[in-house]
Amino acid sequence: MEKYRVTIYNEFVHEKKNEFVKKLYPKGMHEAIGDYMKKEPGFSVNYATLDMPDHGLTQEVLDNTDVLMWWGHVAHGQVKDEIVDRVQTRILQGMGLIVMHSGHMSKIFRRMMGTSCGLCWREAAERERLWVVNPNHQITQGLGAYIELPNVEMYGEVFDIPEPDELLFISWFEGGEVFRSGCVWHRGRGKIFYFRPGHETFPIFYNKDVLKVLANGVRWAKFAGNTEARGVIECPNVKEPLEKLSPKDYKMGEIEHPKA
Amino acid sequence: MEKYRVTIYNEFVHEKKNEFVKKLYPKGMHEAIGDYMKKEPGFSVNYATLDMPDHGLTQEVLDNTDVLMWWGHVAHGQVKDEIVDRVQTRILQGMGLIVMHSGHMSKIFRRMMGTSCGLCWREAAERERLWVVNPNHQITQGLGAYIELPNVEMYGEVFDIPEPDELLFISWFEGGEVFRSGCVWHRGRGKIFYFRPGHETFPIFYNKDVLKVLANGVRWAKFAGNTEARGVIECPNVKEPLEKLSPKDYKMGEIEHPKA
Amino acid sequence: MEKYRVTIYNEFVHEKKNEFVKKLYPKGMHEAIGDYMKKEPGFSVNYATLDMPDHGLTQEVLDNTDVLMWWGHVAHGQVKDEIVDRVQTRILQGMGLIVMHSGHMSKIFRRMMGTSCGLCWREAAERERLWVVNPNHQITQGLGAYIELPNVEMYGEVFDIPEPDELLFISWFEGGEVFRSGCVWHRGRGKIFYFRPGHETFPIFYNKDVLKVLANGVRWAKFAGNTEARGVIECPNVKEPLEKLSPKDYKMGEIEHPKA
Amino acid sequence: MEKYRVTIYNEFVHEKKNEFVKKLYPKGMHEAIGDYMKKEPGFSVNYATLDMPDHGLTQEVLDNTDVLMWWGHVAHGQVKDEIVDRVQTRILQGMGLIVMHSGHMSKIFRRMMGTSCGLCWREAAERERLWVVNPNHQITQGLGAYIELPNVEMYGEVFDIPEPDELLFISWFEGGEVFRSGCVWHRGRGKIFYFRPGHETFPIFYNKDVLKVLANGVRWAKFAGNTEARGVIECPNVKEPLEKLSPKDYKMGEIEHPKA
Repeated sequence: MEKYRVTIYNEFVHEKKNEFVKKLYPKGMHEAIGDYMKKEPGFSVNYATLDMPDHGLTQEVLDNTDVLMWWGHVAHGQVKDEIVDRVQTRILQGMGLIVMHSGHMSKIFRRMMGTSCGLCWREAAERERLWVVNPNHQITQGLGAYIELPNVEMYGEVFDIPEPDELLFISWFEGGEVFRSGCVWHRGRGKIFYFRPGHETFPIFYNKDVLKVLANGVRWAKFAGNTEARGVIECPNVKEPLEKLSPKDYKMGEIEHPKA
Repeated sequence: MEKYRVTIYNEFVHEKKNEFVKKLYPKGMHEAIGDYMKKEPGFSVNYATLDMPDHGLTQEVLDNTDVLMWWGHVAHGQVKDEIVDRVQTRILQGMGLIVMHSGHMSKIFRRMMGTSCGLCWREAAERERLWVVNPNHQITQGLGAYIELPNVEMYGEVFDIPEPDELLFISWFEGGEVFRSGCVWHRGRGKIFYFRPGHETFPIFYNKDVLKVLANGVRWAKFAGNTEARGVIECPNVKEPLEKLSPKDYKMGEIEHPKA
Repeated sequence: MEKYRVTIYNEFVHEKKNEFVKKLYPKGMHEAIGDYMKKEPGFSVNYATLDMPDHGLTQEVLDNTDVLMWWGHVAHGQVKDEIVDRVQTRILQGMGLIVMHSGHMSKIFRRMMGTSCGLCWREAAERERLWVVNPNHQITQGLGAYIELPNVEMYGEVFDIPEPDELLFISWFEGGEVFRSGCVWHRGRGKIFYFRPGHETFPIFYNKDVLKVLANGVRWAKFAGNTEARGVIECPNVKEPLEKLSPKDYKMGEIEHPKA
Repeated sequence: MEKYRVTIYNEFVHEKKNEFVKKLYPKGMHEAIGDYMKKEPGFSVNYATLDMPDHGLTQEVLDNTDVLMWWGHVAHGQVKDEIVDRVQTRILQGMGLIVMHSGHMSKIFRRMMGTSCGLCWREAAERERLWVVNPNHQITQGLGAYIELPNVEMYGEVFDIPEPDELLFISWFEGGEVFRSGCVWHRGRGKIFYFRPGHETFPIFYNKDVLKVLANGVRWAKFAGNTEARGVIECPNVKEPLEKLSPKDYKMGEIEHPKA
């Protein structure tokens, strides 16, 4: 059976400081997500939180992770740049990345996108409907025409991201906005999936459709690449041409300065 | 007449250290490029080099730049991170960026792409033919089916970049390789153009077709965006919904912990 | 001044049969659109309707059209296939195409897309809000964050189109759906813009923002391509290699059948 | 084990008319390809040729095909339009399509692309090197940095196709040209893969790397979509809004003609 080694990063701050959030996610959002993932065929789950050494993201952990899931909100700035460098390198080598909700402002997501990743938002516990616009993608399998969430924080356009390689979900909000809620990109040998649901004050990570999408995301994001092909990360000097070169009229140091 | 305020950054190291390069580009590659650009209708040209204060890229300079051109090779690491931050912010606000040749490994290009931007290479003064694969794009106007360069440094695939929004040129090399030599991306409000030609030891920046493409690139990359639209850089809280919200069954602090 | 020769095709059936539509668009939707276009700098306007010879789309008309706008609904099937062939050829040669509203099911749009172009719909005179998700594109210039239309026919996802080259607008509907309402594609040397608004029973084509987007669309869709580049439409035999070929070990008729 | 029901269409004309081709492919190119496919885990193979009733592509055959492979050259015009319609419909419903070599000018490929699919070509038995530019894709697994073919017909740019969703291979030709040799697109629920190698006068379809790519293509192109999601092919009227609509000020027949 195919194996999926998942590491779930959660800054794990709200759940310790806020009584309401603690009641909702007593073991943290990461364990709510992990409890579901553990039951998926072939999945093994590891947790990482901000206060662990290296935020739980040592080189050894990353080397043994197929897909990294990321949740952060108030503590993006506390994630060390050297850890972000390390995670980026592993993604470019083929580790999948799933970014959830407020993770859109995390250092790692902004690093991979190259853009501000800004958006507009509102907390009014309004209704959201995530429409599947690509019913053929591996990530949208097993869903109906949409996922409905009764109470959410709203995210609205303009979402400052590179045009997704594929757009999977568009959200409708009761208050009048829309949002590109499910997007995928390829970067280096890695695959990246952004999925919007997931505010800390709502029981989003107990919703079966949300969890199903995240599990599909893990299966999609796992690297299936060709480790024999050369040159993705390095910048090698390939001295020998494959074809014989013609005699050069060019000689180093003997070129005349052309007339502009 | 449309105005194009161009700033050309060149690290300007080879031209001062290497006698051969100095002979080829006595005032630096930036001025060779600039001499052509100055003759284009509406173009004004400003220069920036590594050894200037802020590498010549002060906030004031960037605020008055429509398109920034970038050449660097041996001194990428000496470009200060705070200047890279500043340039990235201006690109996301709408400044165009044209990256030439070995600039593929510059901090700013890797920052905008999110990838390693690696490739493979060879110095053998071989022949290159840049085929136009998108003859309809603004950047390829005024060219024939290809541009031929008699002596170049080779760049070969795999080029570790995000799939370009549009692919404009593919290079054929005498020694047997191919390369995606002209690529464009959109990031934030900014436009980015990577163009391969330009090694310091060849008179590439006197080639009329190369210069024509770069001037077309400036015209394409200049921001024409809508400054009224909200939300590209900031992440604003839009408190008032546009539509009236239904009464909520959700109350903060009263949600029961759902059964997992 | 740049010239834009616009031909507006309207099947012109509803306006002649339905008293209500006739009152709303007494000269037809094409002339409502055309009255606005004529006032744009450099625009000239020509009309084509189903009942004209060749539906008004003779070779001469097409040869003198920069951008063709298309509205149809109940009479898609009456458009002759030979005219669709002719229009497709001209688009591939560089004529722009703007498809409005129910034109999504026209023969020419389905021909250019290769897909069914299906969607779901509802007539309930509900509110629509078209959010600008790409505020930097030429087509979205001069708009606010969204266009609001008080009464429209709803179009909902899944919209069976190829992933757009760029997504410009996403619609929010009062009744709970979303839709990719502004999409662009490149095909051959031609540019294609689909824009959702425009039902015959609503005064959509008098809305200044809708008309502004359509005029921007004309400016964007006009061909600016390179007529010197070879090979876009034809499939030429280029007998002479650019490089000298090596002696072949292959001789026609002398190859042994390899072992499978 | 996953099942892959493959139908290989070959017009099967050259092999019956030309002594040299007959010697090279005594049972036709389709059987050369099929002999390899039959050995892949889970693959079953069916053949279709031009001279069969319905060209071997009855509704029943298509309904029992996961992936259709297509080779044609001199007899594209003899393929009946009604069969092309039928094949297109099945692709939009989720059947994969792999188009090989001169199949670029087939009715079905041009139908799916919407473009002319033209290119330039030369028969000079020259060397080709297909570089992998996307080493992470399912289709390029198990290959080295490139595939080398000693004697081929050349195809050169401009290849008149929609920008591929992903570009997998770029060819280098001894005679000086380049070509986008491996491209994938999504259309409706179907996946399409174009792969360049395959001229009738060369033993291309005995090359193990070429066959490996084609088998990978079958695995990639097989539909894995969600048959529950609505609306891809049909255009349904969804009468009931999900949300309650506000009272309308609009009444059919009572709208005043707005001032233009």
